[in-house]
Amino acid sequence: MITRKEWEQARDGALRCFNLAGVVLTEEEETRIEVADFGLSNLLQLGLELFTYVNTERVCAKELVLFPRQTCPEHRHPPVEGQPGKEETFRCRWGEVFLYVPGEPTPDPGAQPPQEIAGRYTVFHEIHLRPGDQYTIYPDTPHWFQAGDMGAVVSEFSTRSHDEADIFTDPAVERATQVRDE
Amino acid sequence: MITRKEWEQARDGALRCFNLAGVVLTEEEETRIEVADFGLSNLLQLGLELFTYVNTERVCAKELVLFPRQTCPEHRHPPVEGQPGKEETFRCRWGEVFLYVPGEPTPDPGAQPPQEIAGRYTVFHEIHLRPGDQYTIYPDTPHWFQAGDMGAVVSEFSTRSHDEADIFTDPAVERATQVRDE
Repeated sequence: MITRKEWEQARDGALRCFNLAGVVLTEEEETRIEVADFGLSNLLQLGLELFTYVNTERVCAKELVLFPRQTCPEHRHPPVEGQPGKEETFRCRWGEVFLYVPGEPTPDPGAQPPQEIAGRYTVFHEIHLRPGDQYTIYPDTPHWFQAGDMGAVVSEFSTRSHDEADIFTDPAVERATQVRDE
Repeated sequence: MITRKEWEQARDGALRCFNLAGVVLTEEEETRIEVADFGLSNLLQLGLELFTYVNTERVCAKELVLFPRQTCPEHRHPPVEGQPGKEETFRCRWGEVFLYVPGEPTPDPGAQPPQEIAGRYTVFHEIHLRPGDQYTIYPDTPHWFQAGDMGAVVSEFSTRSHDEADIFTDPAVERATQVRDE
């Protein structure tokens, strides 16, 4: 749950990050920026701001914003409707992001899982993405990511997105964000 | 056929356009910019500069550059290896582009086909894309496009790209560009 004011502040912050990254949205598109708190009501620590350019049967493209040290919780994209799960390539456009995937845990990682739910993160192999760096995540692979101290703008190129089918490691996560009018 | 010097000038021009559009490539990526003259040996009028971020079995993403009034000749993406043809969404990032697809010919279009091969363009319904505008082209749809007076940077989000399978309306086109060392 976030308040309407939190939603507006996050949208405005996302627009400032897009501006810094050279990403142009139309005025109509600006009204469709998505703010996700994953049902955890702690947006600035656990959340994601995003804009979906296109999501057809075969192709999806999004622009993601993470505020400084904001974390997208661990999740994976399972098979849906008889199709393999979502495949996605993250490309850092601005700032930096620490992405975690299965593999040897990285010593001295650049990010830490948020403390209160540290036990709900299971993969710790770090991919450090700076502008121009990218990484492809194949279906059903658990992953989570956190921005560095400046925040980050990340392009996502993928197959069709079924956000509602994502499986989060933390059972407290709800993918749909509730916005409360005060 | 283009000369090595033409290739280098086009690559440098593409990098300047990427810089204006806020698109960051790594140094290694800069060496992989593709310059296409479509075998027509008239690059500044008929050509395209591009960088492919990713091209897996399911997903492709590219960044395209067109110099001022440069035209990408009419073509379509047919079925390949039992799969439907390529579906692609063009999103204008910088400058402007006039895209032509099947439909009612647009009166007073923003672009004209290059004169010497005017008879080899068959679709004239105009989609005018400015920064933040986008358009999805479904498989096997003929299309061609020309940048406006500033040139253009266009993101392409698509299914797997099989450039060698593209069918150009002009039989003189060869998709693979020959670079001549002088």
